[in-house]
Amino acid sequence: MAGDGRAVYPVVAGRPAGVAAGQTLVTGTVQEFAASGVVTLTTDFGLKDPFVGVMKGRLVAGFPAVRIIDLTHEIPAHWPAEAGFWLSRSFRYFPVGTVHVAVVDPGVGGARAIAAVEAAGHLFLAPDNGLLAPVIESVSVVCARHVSGAVLVRLGVDAPSATFHGRDIFAPLAAAVAAGRLLPADLGDPVGELVPGWIEEPTVVGAQLTGTVVTIDHFGNLITNIEARHLEGLVHPVVRAAGRDLPLRRTYSDVRPGDYLALVNSFGVLEIARAERSAAEGLGLARGAPVTVVSK
Amino acid sequence: MAGDGRAVYPVVAGRPAGVAAGQTLVTGTVQEFAASGVVTLTTDFGLKDPFVGVMKGRLVAGFPAVRIIDLTHEIPAHWPAEAGFWLSRSFRYFPVGTVHVAVVDPGVGGARAIAAVEAAGHLFLAPDNGLLAPVIESVSVVCARHVSGAVLVRLGVDAPSATFHGRDIFAPLAAAVAAGRLLPADLGDPVGELVPGWIEEPTVVGAQLTGTVVTIDHFGNLITNIEARHLEGLVHPVVRAAGRDLPLRRTYSDVRPGDYLALVNSFGVLEIARAERSAAEGLGLARGAPVTVVSK
Amino acid sequence: MAGDGRAVYPVVAGRPAGVAAGQTLVTGTVQEFAASGVVTLTTDFGLKDPFVGVMKGRLVAGFPAVRIIDLTHEIPAHWPAEAGFWLSRSFRYFPVGTVHVAVVDPGVGGARAIAAVEAAGHLFLAPDNGLLAPVIESVSVVCARHVSGAVLVRLGVDAPSATFHGRDIFAPLAAAVAAGRLLPADLGDPVGELVPGWIEEPTVVGAQLTGTVVTIDHFGNLITNIEARHLEGLVHPVVRAAGRDLPLRRTYSDVRPGDYLALVNSFGVLEIARAERSAAEGLGLARGAPVTVVSK
Repeated sequence: MAGDGRAVYPVVAGRPAGVAAGQTLVTGTVQEFAASGVVTLTTDFGLKDPFVGVMKGRLVAGFPAVRIIDLTHEIPAHWPAEAGFWLSRSFRYFPVGTVHVAVVDPGVGGARAIAAVEAAGHLFLAPDNGLLAPVIESVSVVCARHVSGAVLVRLGVDAPSATFHGRDIFAPLAAAVAAGRLLPADLGDPVGELVPGWIEEPTVVGAQLTGTVVTIDHFGNLITNIEARHLEGLVHPVVRAAGRDLPLRRTYSDVRPGDYLALVNSFGVLEIARAERSAAEGLGLARGAPVTVVSK
Repeated sequence: MAGDGRAVYPVVAGRPAGVAAGQTLVTGTVQEFAASGVVTLTTDFGLKDPFVGVMKGRLVAGFPAVRIIDLTHEIPAHWPAEAGFWLSRSFRYFPVGTVHVAVVDPGVGGARAIAAVEAAGHLFLAPDNGLLAPVIESVSVVCARHVSGAVLVRLGVDAPSATFHGRDIFAPLAAAVAAGRLLPADLGDPVGELVPGWIEEPTVVGAQLTGTVVTIDHFGNLITNIEARHLEGLVHPVVRAAGRDLPLRRTYSDVRPGDYLALVNSFGVLEIARAERSAAEGLGLARGAPVTVVSK
Repeated sequence: MAGDGRAVYPVVAGRPAGVAAGQTLVTGTVQEFAASGVVTLTTDFGLKDPFVGVMKGRLVAGFPAVRIIDLTHEIPAHWPAEAGFWLSRSFRYFPVGTVHVAVVDPGVGGARAIAAVEAAGHLFLAPDNGLLAPVIESVSVVCARHVSGAVLVRLGVDAPSATFHGRDIFAPLAAAVAAGRLLPADLGDPVGELVPGWIEEPTVVGAQLTGTVVTIDHFGNLITNIEARHLEGLVHPVVRAAGRDLPLRRTYSDVRPGDYLALVNSFGVLEIARAERSAAEGLGLARGAPVTVVSK
């Protein structure tokens, strides 16, 4: 049913708040969403409390055949940027027709629209707080909506708790969409803009490319927002971080244990690693640290 | 099939050991349990070891279509009170007919009955060590049983390991109940008392209400056992904790980042929070700390 | 279909690198593998990042009805020994026909075969780096294969990422086997040897048995590779660790809170524990520490 004339809208996103931003207008025909029954969850709730569990309870109560997969619940509290980054790099490994729910929202309880974004046959539900900007930048065309109050009333969630929207709004909403009871087009009116993203895109000044450490993984690898395509023009690229020049290699085993390297990782972005050790500890770098690449 | 004459029994619970306790007698007709196929797990096992995984292995081996949902596995080791608290606040978000398994038991390996409690159409399985007291207090009527040795023999678990009852007793038991092979009435004889709970109920002295910090969540919010209904009689309530007077607000975004507040949270209990920060770290409070509410 | 003449091969395993090893030859007829649809996952990926989530995405994409159970994702990074130990002690609690995927591989990205081991009606997939040695030692007969390049081409994973084999190779492979689209015999040619294991088997010198702390669980219990059968010949066995003599008891509640004990735990191996406390913290012992047992 692609090409059925569904409206597609330009969406502003992917620029950090406070940075002058050109609009990224994305137009064309979005790939039809056909629910697969799979729902992924990405939150900052952690697994210590029953918060994720009760979200799943409501999902199963609303759609007994739902398949729920945790992406991660360890996004740093109150920082949506990492959730959007991982979602944009992960969603294509799930079946087309998956509903991706992401709830990381410093402003929960205040006035905040819920964004429903269709892209590449997947549906994303998140607070409209910039979280989904990396997803939108990673695809050629999207259709974005704000979930309407009428839909929430229809789901019986018109008087949710002030603080736990994951359980009280997102879970019943995702259950209804994953079950096929609600279509994306039912969710609300398309919108032409979403709140811009939290992380500045990599910049090029002369022969120098500068990006940002977005996250640090379990192994201490520093993962940046510099993509393989950003590196294409560079001759003999050398990666600079924490005052060191690091060689660009293919994989961890290309250097000796304990040595540093940079590589394009399995998610297609530049990563700074230390073979069999933690690069983050060794270099003393954290999220937000700048990383540059120069030709040598 | 409610009202079919099933016996319902008073249960003593909800009073801390060592505190003179009036019996809470709960009588009436319990809502029929009809298995939904969903099982929740609440333990102190953590996720580092394969303990939860092998429990799930036995559940799936015993009932291939089971739907398993983790509530939490990070209950503080050897403190059942928190498990019961979260269960009592969470179980209604799961489908009626869910089997809730909770295993937190300092006395594992010693003599200990297994409690099977029917309430509100749900079934709870836990060591009879006070864990389920908060669940029992949260409902109007329950039917409590001790699981009989005959049932364990029938399940082939009459010689379980001395130390891993979650895998060797609770998992096959829950699988049989979730699959509908065992009905609650098959589990054993009803009992009139269970071991009392671990946390004292909030007390009122004059115009002052005193409760307890039961748990600290992932965000550092201090969660108490004071319920919204306890606050109803108070005019201009002010919450006192760690020597501070905290305003009672509706939600986190009602104060500025860094400010403290108290609120009735999304689970219906009083919580002390700090907007976008950790109240627990800021106030230096831990589980068991007293919290008072006064009229001002 | 047991006894259908399938070739069964001797496998070398279970000896630490650098230790002169006699081959353990295992012969006989392996129990037929009939897929149950269940897949377990054991990795060193942690749950902080979306690595486990995207593996599950590919599993569900490849086999929508798959039942996925996490064994653990907290194996110490780059140390396969613990993964194999837990798998060998856990797999029998899962249904026959389960596919067990274990990915802990310091050498990822370098040349490394993928081992597919059939044993006791289960199938194990792991890097051939010694990880599966404890599984092989725990069963009477196995059939081991190296997954062929032809199978990977057939699965469309012939050009995987250099660093994320869990997602790019193991997940689609496990999905195909769990779905019954690939039989173990399709996976590749049988091999007569696998890379030996990482931990030395317990040794007996005179009346003294010496083993190793393999892992420390969530409760701080020190878990060794000394099995109940190793203790059988000993009269009045006493366990020595960290310069202390510890009594061998049946269960934790056989000593007072705070006291140390040794016991054969629920996984059938010798464990050093401290009632209601952490033995690891109390004794200052870590993985790899020697533990001896003497007759007294």
